[in-house]
Amino acid sequence: MQTLILVLDLVGTFVFAVSGAAKGVTSRLDLFGILVLSFAAASAGSIARDVVIGAIPPAAIGDWRYLAVSVLAGVMTFAWFPVIHRLRSAVLVFDAAGLALFAVSGAQKALEFGLTPVMAALLGMLTGIGGGMTRDMLVAEIPTVLRTELYAVTALLGAAVVVAGHVLQLPSTGVTIAGAVLCFGLRVIAIRRGWHLPAAEPAQGP
Amino acid sequence: MQTLILVLDLVGTFVFAVSGAAKGVTSRLDLFGILVLSFAAASAGSIARDVVIGAIPPAAIGDWRYLAVSVLAGVMTFAWFPVIHRLRSAVLVFDAAGLALFAVSGAQKALEFGLTPVMAALLGMLTGIGGGMTRDMLVAEIPTVLRTELYAVTALLGAAVVVAGHVLQLPSTGVTIAGAVLCFGLRVIAIRRGWHLPAAEPAQGP
Amino acid sequence: MQTLILVLDLVGTFVFAVSGAAKGVTSRLDLFGILVLSFAAASAGSIARDVVIGAIPPAAIGDWRYLAVSVLAGVMTFAWFPVIHRLRSAVLVFDAAGLALFAVSGAQKALEFGLTPVMAALLGMLTGIGGGMTRDMLVAEIPTVLRTELYAVTALLGAAVVVAGHVLQLPSTGVTIAGAVLCFGLRVIAIRRGWHLPAAEPAQGP
Repeated sequence: MQTLILVLDLVGTFVFAVSGAAKGVTSRLDLFGILVLSFAAASAGSIARDVVIGAIPPAAIGDWRYLAVSVLAGVMTFAWFPVIHRLRSAVLVFDAAGLALFAVSGAQKALEFGLTPVMAALLGMLTGIGGGMTRDMLVAEIPTVLRTELYAVTALLGAAVVVAGHVLQLPSTGVTIAGAVLCFGLRVIAIRRGWHLPAAEPAQGP
Repeated sequence: MQTLILVLDLVGTFVFAVSGAAKGVTSRLDLFGILVLSFAAASAGSIARDVVIGAIPPAAIGDWRYLAVSVLAGVMTFAWFPVIHRLRSAVLVFDAAGLALFAVSGAQKALEFGLTPVMAALLGMLTGIGGGMTRDMLVAEIPTVLRTELYAVTALLGAAVVVAGHVLQLPSTGVTIAGAVLCFGLRVIAIRRGWHLPAAEPAQGP
Repeated sequence: MQTLILVLDLVGTFVFAVSGAAKGVTSRLDLFGILVLSFAAASAGSIARDVVIGAIPPAAIGDWRYLAVSVLAGVMTFAWFPVIHRLRSAVLVFDAAGLALFAVSGAQKALEFGLTPVMAALLGMLTGIGGGMTRDMLVAEIPTVLRTELYAVTALLGAAVVVAGHVLQLPSTGVTIAGAVLCFGLRVIAIRRGWHLPAAEPAQGP
C-alpha cells in the first residue's frame, strides 16, 4: 500500500511537471526556465502547504525523488514537445489523476498537523491547484484555475471526503480511495462535458 | 475592548475581501476565482507576516471566521456586483479603515514575536498592503500600491506609532487607537486630495 | 575574514537593490514602489530560502542593515536614474559579483540547516536568483532568468562547488572562494560572449 501511494504520488508529480514544462515551451522559455516551471508546477502546492502547516523543510525539498521526477519530465517535454503536444488529451486525464492524489494526500497531511477540518480540506485543494497557479503566474498569466472549467472544486470535494472520514473516524485507506476516485471521476466528466462555474458580468455595472 | 477589536478586524477582512472579489469580477474570473481573490485580498498580508515571524499556522488559516467572512463577501459581491460598484466611494473609506486596523494589529503581533522596532513597523505595513498586492498579482497586474496614491505610507505611519509607543512603554490601547486614527485620517485625506508620491522619469535616461 | 564577507554581502545587496529600483523606475512606479522593488530584488531570494529551511525570522528581516542598504540604493537610483542607466555595464559586473556571493552563502546556510547536498546547491541558486524573479513578477513580467542568458546555471555551479567541498570535507573558506570565483567568472564570460541556453521550438507542434 505504502509503495502504491509513493508510485501514484510520483506519477502525479510527473504529470504536473509535464504541464509546467509544456507551458514553459509555449511561453518560449529557455531550458532552465522550462525546468523551473516543471518543478514549480509539480511542487509549489505542496511546498505552500508545508510552509503554512509548519512541516519544515517541505517534503518536495527534503526528498530528492520529487526533484528528479520533475527534471526528467521537463527534459522529456523539452526534447519531445511535439509528441507531448499530440498526447495532450491523455495528459489531461493523467492531470486529473495527479489532482486527485495531491488533494487527498494534502488533506491528510494537514489533518496530521492538527489543522481544523475546514482548513484541512482547503489545504488539500491548495496542494492540488497551487502548482498550476504558480506555473501560470511565473509566465505572467492569470491562473487558468481561477477562470475556467470545474477544476478546484473537484479537488475540494475529494479533500472534503478525506476530512469527513477523519471526523467520522472511518478507516483512512477507504476514505482516501473514495476521495481520490470522486475527484478524478468528477474532473474527467467535467472535461468531457465542458462543465464550468458561473462568472459574473462586469458590464452590468453602471 | 477585545470584542471591539475582533469586530473591527472582521470588518477589515470583509472590506478587503470585497475589494478582491470586485477585482475578480472585473477580471472575468469564475465564481471560484472570485472567492480565491476575496480570501487572498483579505488574508495574504497576515499570512505572509505570520510565516516570516514564525506564527504557525497563520491566524487566517487557524481561525475559520476569517475564511467565512471572506466567502460571504465574495458571494455578495458576485451576486450584487452593480450595487457594490455603485457604492465604491464608500468601499474606499471602509478600505481605509481596514488598512488602519491591519497595520496596527500587524505591528503589535510582530512586536509580540520579538521583531526589531523597524521591522515590526514594516511588517505592520505588509499586513495592511500584502493582500491587495497578492490580489493584483493573481490577475497579472502590477500592484496598484506600487504605482499610485498615498496608501502604504499611511499604513507605515500608523504602524510606526504603535512601535514608538511600545519603545517608549506607553499604554498599548492608547497608542493602538492613535496609530489607527492617524492611518485612517491620512488615507481618507489622501483620497480626497489625490495625494500621491513622486515617480521617477525614465525618459531622462539617455 | 568575517568582516570581508559581511562587506561583500552588503555590496551584493546594494547591487541587487539597484537592479530592483531601476526596474521600478522603468516600470513607472512611484517612490514607494521603487523602494519595494529594491528590497524585494535584494532580499526575496534569501527570505524564501530562510522560510523553507526554517531560519525564522529570515536574516533579511532580523538584521536592519540589509533594509538600510536596500533603501539607500533605491533612493540613489530614484534620484540619479540617468547616471545609473549610463553605468549599466558596470552594474552588470557588480550584479555578477552579487550573484556569486549570494549563491555560495545561500548554499552554506542550507548545509548548516541540514539540507541534502543537491537541495543545498539548489537553494544556493534560489538565493541568487529569487530576488530578480520576484522583482520581475512584481511588475507583471516573465522573470528574465527563465528566458535568456546563462545566469542561474552559473549560480548553481558556484553553489555546487561549495556543496561538493562540504561532502569531501575540504576547508570551507577555500571552497567558498572557489565557488564564488567560478560563478563570477562564468557569468562575466557569459555576458561578454552572449552565451545562453537552448529554447524549445513550440511551432514544431501540430
